[in-house]
Amino acid sequence: MPPNPQLNANGELQHLLSIEGLPREILIRILDTAESFVGVTEREVKKVPLLRGKSVFNLFFESSTRTRTTFEIAAKRLSADVINLNIAASSQSKGESLLDTVANLSAMQADMFVVRHASSGAPFLIARHVKPHEHVINAGDGRHAHPTQGLLDLYTIRHYKKDFRELTVAVVGDVLHSRVARSLIHGLTTLGVPEVRAIGPQTLMPAGVEALGVRVYHDVREGLRDADVVVMLRLQNERMSGALLPSAQEFFMTYGLTAERLALAKPAAIVMHPGPMNRGVEIDSSVADGPHSVILPQVTFGIAVRMAVMSMVAGH
Amino acid sequence: MPPNPQLNANGELQHLLSIEGLPREILIRILDTAESFVGVTEREVKKVPLLRGKSVFNLFFESSTRTRTTFEIAAKRLSADVINLNIAASSQSKGESLLDTVANLSAMQADMFVVRHASSGAPFLIARHVKPHEHVINAGDGRHAHPTQGLLDLYTIRHYKKDFRELTVAVVGDVLHSRVARSLIHGLTTLGVPEVRAIGPQTLMPAGVEALGVRVYHDVREGLRDADVVVMLRLQNERMSGALLPSAQEFFMTYGLTAERLALAKPAAIVMHPGPMNRGVEIDSSVADGPHSVILPQVTFGIAVRMAVMSMVAGH
Amino acid sequence: MPPNPQLNANGELQHLLSIEGLPREILIRILDTAESFVGVTEREVKKVPLLRGKSVFNLFFESSTRTRTTFEIAAKRLSADVINLNIAASSQSKGESLLDTVANLSAMQADMFVVRHASSGAPFLIARHVKPHEHVINAGDGRHAHPTQGLLDLYTIRHYKKDFRELTVAVVGDVLHSRVARSLIHGLTTLGVPEVRAIGPQTLMPAGVEALGVRVYHDVREGLRDADVVVMLRLQNERMSGALLPSAQEFFMTYGLTAERLALAKPAAIVMHPGPMNRGVEIDSSVADGPHSVILPQVTFGIAVRMAVMSMVAGH
Repeated sequence: MPPNPQLNANGELQHLLSIEGLPREILIRILDTAESFVGVTEREVKKVPLLRGKSVFNLFFESSTRTRTTFEIAAKRLSADVINLNIAASSQSKGESLLDTVANLSAMQADMFVVRHASSGAPFLIARHVKPHEHVINAGDGRHAHPTQGLLDLYTIRHYKKDFRELTVAVVGDVLHSRVARSLIHGLTTLGVPEVRAIGPQTLMPAGVEALGVRVYHDVREGLRDADVVVMLRLQNERMSGALLPSAQEFFMTYGLTAERLALAKPAAIVMHPGPMNRGVEIDSSVADGPHSVILPQVTFGIAVRMAVMSMVAGH
Repeated sequence: MPPNPQLNANGELQHLLSIEGLPREILIRILDTAESFVGVTEREVKKVPLLRGKSVFNLFFESSTRTRTTFEIAAKRLSADVINLNIAASSQSKGESLLDTVANLSAMQADMFVVRHASSGAPFLIARHVKPHEHVINAGDGRHAHPTQGLLDLYTIRHYKKDFRELTVAVVGDVLHSRVARSLIHGLTTLGVPEVRAIGPQTLMPAGVEALGVRVYHDVREGLRDADVVVMLRLQNERMSGALLPSAQEFFMTYGLTAERLALAKPAAIVMHPGPMNRGVEIDSSVADGPHSVILPQVTFGIAVRMAVMSMVAGH
Repeated sequence: MPPNPQLNANGELQHLLSIEGLPREILIRILDTAESFVGVTEREVKKVPLLRGKSVFNLFFESSTRTRTTFEIAAKRLSADVINLNIAASSQSKGESLLDTVANLSAMQADMFVVRHASSGAPFLIARHVKPHEHVINAGDGRHAHPTQGLLDLYTIRHYKKDFRELTVAVVGDVLHSRVARSLIHGLTTLGVPEVRAIGPQTLMPAGVEALGVRVYHDVREGLRDADVVVMLRLQNERMSGALLPSAQEFFMTYGLTAERLALAKPAAIVMHPGPMNRGVEIDSSVADGPHSVILPQVTFGIAVRMAVMSMVAGH
């Protein structure tokens, strides 16, 4: 078996590439570390000097203002110097290869690369080529993984539900195209969640998803019954006009989370969404803004989780 | 009467949304505070730690490199962490609402939002929805207001003329579309300027402008006579080819500030312009670069005024 | 003779505009200062406080993510506040002149302008109009100069070859359109390199290049013979489909650096390239990644050289 590309020789977190393959104890250490940073972000001076003098490159080969912003904030609160690179519009168009671009930035004495790329696996490729003191964090690669989003989902679930080992978690919507869903499902099974459900139309369900330990439902009411956690996935705009889905309205009719449907879940169920929400498509506004929603706390915890990952790979 | 949305329960500045409705003593306190920052920006190390560890978001729903730059510099000189968000190109295109975008950034533990928006009132809407410890600064909303520009104009006038209560101020050009003019006129009347004149063609004069305490002139020579302060407004390029104006050349012929026309004002008159200037349209180059021009000092004072507003809303 | 626009009255570096005209002792002082910064960039905390509280404006009238990034990193490692301005997309489109744009930024209390412009001479024009305490660094102007690239090339050569006075340096490719080549050639002759060769087709050779002290070769094998340093120039994509060149493939056939051709140079020859490389056009991958290549160290030294220039103009 090849060594885990995310861990160094001492078994410590070297890169964060995917939740798949992360040992349970590392997952838990990330969540514990994030907990200590939640306090920092609530202080008057929301800064700690852990990454002072370090250069963090936000390498976005696919633009995403929201995700880039969360990493930029996390890095600045750790006192790092942050360089934002929107590569879509730059050297790549000059015909330079991905690895030459990274080798060049690495020669500028980078410490960390936060990588978003439309191709699955790009952050793994980069991680294989950087120097030993450099770290790669996957900020979303193709349909493959979005591990910090998965981690903040796990953090949020633990925050509200404490113990993973008695939970029923329902993931609803376009599981097929969702790197968020993939990352989360791996985390949930690693942390011992006994029942993970994927709810959606057959056309949006990946082949063989059951092999991940997931139970598939096509009827949203059945799938939501007695759930402790409901995770609504974002429906990409580009899918809505495609062949896989009749229309946004019809999706909402069939799978959208309404108060009435949510009532089938446990009374203390929490509702999550990775954002940005399509109100009236995946979720009714009354639910999005209602008492079960923890969608905004997810965002807050997301900063702390990213600070945790950045500081852990940097060796703190 | 509803409470003033710009003040907190103690009557202190909570948001800066418009000069209209700001109490005179708050206006003066901003100018006094700005005065103390003019010194800072002239020092070797142009930084004070007042906003250290605070996160300032430049939320530009309408792009404006110049205005964004002034706020970015002001925030960095106060030691804040600044995050630039060009929202035109981002989540909004993913169909997320203005308030969802702001709620998300707020969940990232924002301290301050500097908002530029093409729709009048957008910063007010945001201010109504942020948390008590968060602050909103209007960096220009539609045709409505541009209060920091108005404040820097007031600062500049006070710097050169000392006492507002004996001044004649002439505002020349496209008053109709100018949020700069609106903000300035409110400030001038609040601070007791006895004579404010608006000079321009009828087509560029807002209906009922006299109700603001302004005297309207269509003849530039009459309007400039014995003025202490001449404020030239920028003519938007898009107006020049429109129905409201015959041509840029004709505008210059009729209203452009030449040395000969400026000679009608008081000998010690100052000439202002919010920039960027259209030389040869609103103003002759000899005047723009001449001894009466205080156009570049306006820019310098603008940084100090923005530092003052940011530090005051943050409670310093 | 007019005073050197790059030096102040005490003969110290005030602006960096071109290597042409820089006294030998200043060139050497820059290289020596850069050497001290190479150590800084290898430390855990890669920051020195030399430019703390200074405002550095990256004024890019022509976009170049790579060059902008190197200056941004250099300035941040000197603890400056960095403001990135992509002017192509901003005020210029509002019809403001180059000098008005700069005058405005200067009024915001700028300390340093890093200027990239498609027009040769633009940084010189700006340098003539800024205030005495402000500094201009040319980050590439038209076909004219790219002095920090030239300096990092010189630094790299000195690092590996120690003594300039016994070297044969071969510059290969599109010398005609290369500001990199111009800057480097001036530096090499100033530092006493006895033999500088320019290798390329007649169509890509500037008229009268011999007057710079350069020997022209059209046969790459002849030109490379016994060279100590081989500098490959980037072939601009836009040239490849033009009248000056048959095709990229043919260029590689005639002038591309292969291992077999490189074997004609001295056994300890180093191979340089300003990046981004077109593998298989200017250079074979086996050479780019081979033992003679110092292309990535060039990038590393480039940060140190930019830190040196910035700190020297600022008076440290």
